[in-house]
Amino acid sequence: MKNRVITISREFGSGGRTVGKRTAERLGIPCYDQTLIEQISRESGLSPEFVREKGEYTTHGGWLASVFADRGPDGSSTQDFLGMVQRKVILKLAEEGPCVIVGRCGDYILREAADCLKVFIHADMEKRAERIVAVYGEREEAPVERLRDKDRRRAAYYRFYTGAEWGDARNYHLSLDSGVFGIDRCVDLIAGLY
Amino acid sequence: MKNRVITISREFGSGGRTVGKRTAERLGIPCYDQTLIEQISRESGLSPEFVREKGEYTTHGGWLASVFADRGPDGSSTQDFLGMVQRKVILKLAEEGPCVIVGRCGDYILREAADCLKVFIHADMEKRAERIVAVYGEREEAPVERLRDKDRRRAAYYRFYTGAEWGDARNYHLSLDSGVFGIDRCVDLIAGLY
Repeated sequence: MKNRVITISREFGSGGRTVGKRTAERLGIPCYDQTLIEQISRESGLSPEFVREKGEYTTHGGWLASVFADRGPDGSSTQDFLGMVQRKVILKLAEEGPCVIVGRCGDYILREAADCLKVFIHADMEKRAERIVAVYGEREEAPVERLRDKDRRRAAYYRFYTGAEWGDARNYHLSLDSGVFGIDRCVDLIAGLY
Repeated sequence: MKNRVITISREFGSGGRTVGKRTAERLGIPCYDQTLIEQISRESGLSPEFVREKGEYTTHGGWLASVFADRGPDGSSTQDFLGMVQRKVILKLAEEGPCVIVGRCGDYILREAADCLKVFIHADMEKRAERIVAVYGEREEAPVERLRDKDRRRAAYYRFYTGAEWGDARNYHLSLDSGVFGIDRCVDLIAGLY
């Protein structure tokens, strides 16, 4: 029988990672986020920083972004290699038992391999800007610019590796605005539907 | 103070109309769906059939669909006129008191005029095909073809009149897969969040 897995896709700054962590705690199952990055790093030999960044974001935004990535003579890139390792690790974790998987196209990778509850967490620009300044501190780049850039590059990554539109409600079972409902209410709803 | 309004956007065949009706019953507030069409028809002098079809769908699918609609010498079309009346009627109903508004770009029209809970109801193709055959009966056109055509024309309408993408989770506070959760669970969730 397939394991029950919750996949959390999230906009940067929406608190989706925290929603995932707390939902897992509530349900008494593991949440793979930082651990996932570490496992992919060990398995691939790539640094955790590279995995964190290149396993969800293209280098530049836009439709053709990934096509212009540095590619070897066979046309494949290090990012493609990372994508393959990522897929393998996520499939293995989902096979081991019920869990929460945050980001990294988990919803797409597990679409046939697990009994998934696919969740998307988003919030409006203002709420996310407040949150990233509170959580990650000020940077030289204005928070709204940082978010726009992150959104563009994450959408381009998702589109390139899955062929689907990141953030389209129809890719998920449940999409929630964490800025309106708050983190705790999101956790209640997801845990209640699991 | 602004009234609290629930807007339900929905894929054809997802049961979103029923979700809206039952949520309104549960909360003891009116649901504007058929009544909305009748009011717009009276106000505009256009037939209910024209209102039902042309107030949510373009004639053909695709990005430029509405640009090629029949237009008068000032560049406007009957569909534009209908759009204006629709907007006026929806704004008036939302001003009168709390209610549920189904479809017709209600989420967009009321974005600043009401305290909205914006909901999107969707379901996968298979579930929707089953539902439309059960509810509306067999037609000459295969159900999946009918749904694809409806989806395309509704998305084109929404894009033309709002500039936003229909079905993008970020346009709504809550998006639900009614095929996975069922109608009753959707009603519970929406009524609980209202």
